[in-house]
Amino acid sequence: MPKEATRDALLSAARAEFAAHGIAGARVDRIAERAGVNKERIYGYFGSKEKLFDQVMITVMDELTAAVAMPGDDPVEYVARLHDYYGTHPELVRLLMWESLHYRDGELEGQEHRVAKCERKAESLAVGLGREPSQETARTMMTLIGLAAWPAVMSRLGRIILGDEAATEEGRLRMREHLVSFARTALAGEADGARPAQGGEPATADGARPAGPAE
Amino acid sequence: MPKEATRDALLSAARAEFAAHGIAGARVDRIAERAGVNKERIYGYFGSKEKLFDQVMITVMDELTAAVAMPGDDPVEYVARLHDYYGTHPELVRLLMWESLHYRDGELEGQEHRVAKCERKAESLAVGLGREPSQETARTMMTLIGLAAWPAVMSRLGRIILGDEAATEEGRLRMREHLVSFARTALAGEADGARPAQGGEPATADGARPAGPAE
Repeated sequence: MPKEATRDALLSAARAEFAAHGIAGARVDRIAERAGVNKERIYGYFGSKEKLFDQVMITVMDELTAAVAMPGDDPVEYVARLHDYYGTHPELVRLLMWESLHYRDGELEGQEHRVAKCERKAESLAVGLGREPSQETARTMMTLIGLAAWPAVMSRLGRIILGDEAATEEGRLRMREHLVSFARTALAGEADGARPAQGGEPATADGARPAGPAE
Repeated sequence: MPKEATRDALLSAARAEFAAHGIAGARVDRIAERAGVNKERIYGYFGSKEKLFDQVMITVMDELTAAVAMPGDDPVEYVARLHDYYGTHPELVRLLMWESLHYRDGELEGQEHRVAKCERKAESLAVGLGREPSQETARTMMTLIGLAAWPAVMSRLGRIILGDEAATEEGRLRMREHLVSFARTALAGEADGARPAQGGEPATADGARPAGPAE
């Protein structure tokens, strides 16, 4: 196999193996066998199982970005498109979950590509919301992704809360509609001038809230 | 050990083992050893590793319910309290993730206790929102839980999007504030009469949206 084809075959086999078994559970020899490639070449190309996983994550997240585009044009529609994407890409959902289970909030070595891409998305979102880019926009970005992905990530909890509906396409579309409505209302309120320091939330007992004018 | 103490010791050991290794990765003999109990007694008390996991989930979710109370009194404050709880109970977060990875949206055999409890919570939320209980309230319930839990569930993604802040207590409190503001705006909009079929979202290309009056 030419070099590029070998690399692609390894990434494709690794994606399936990691999605099924996680990082700790994945076996490099199974990946090599599935790709029809000598196991030693995985280390030659990628360096380690963890670096191979990182490369799989970059690939699947770049695919998501290419399919869903940037949030700035229409942040509410972005939530709907993301919800569709996560709902139809269970491998991606599983890879994200395995990643968080494995790394918790650990160091970001080797994540520069994803960090830079998320910065661009948050900047696009800021434009869409008519704000200056800030950590608050990044938090909104994180929350919109969560709204969109949560039903796919917590499918078992969804089934417990929503019953059989959660496992049907009709239920998925109703959830999409709900999320669109929820996100639209929340973001319209922010666009009306509500800002994090002006939300009217009274100080909490633990002193979490910085001083700010009442709404 | 008296029977009750043996059962408690097994549940406590099982919680740690499942949180660390998941359902497939957990080993019954490690649980028995950690609890100081003969392995055979696990099967005697619980029937199987999967049923032991179910019992652990019931225990941790009942603890959450006891600590966080019902959403009806103040749905926005409920999000804040849930966020605090998930942020300080990483074992619970991991157990929920392992559960979804293992069962996806599979059957709910043995989940009657959790289903009934979620129904009571959704009914409480309906009261808090001034609605009749419905599947739409259940979807709102699912979404509020997602808002609250997402930063703890996707800690790695949070670190990529928010940088080092995400791993600090100050960052967690800022996220709490953001979530409170986001949820308050969204729920205030719903209380103002916005209903899922009246959100003004134009029909999507895939026809997902049922007909409804414009906003």
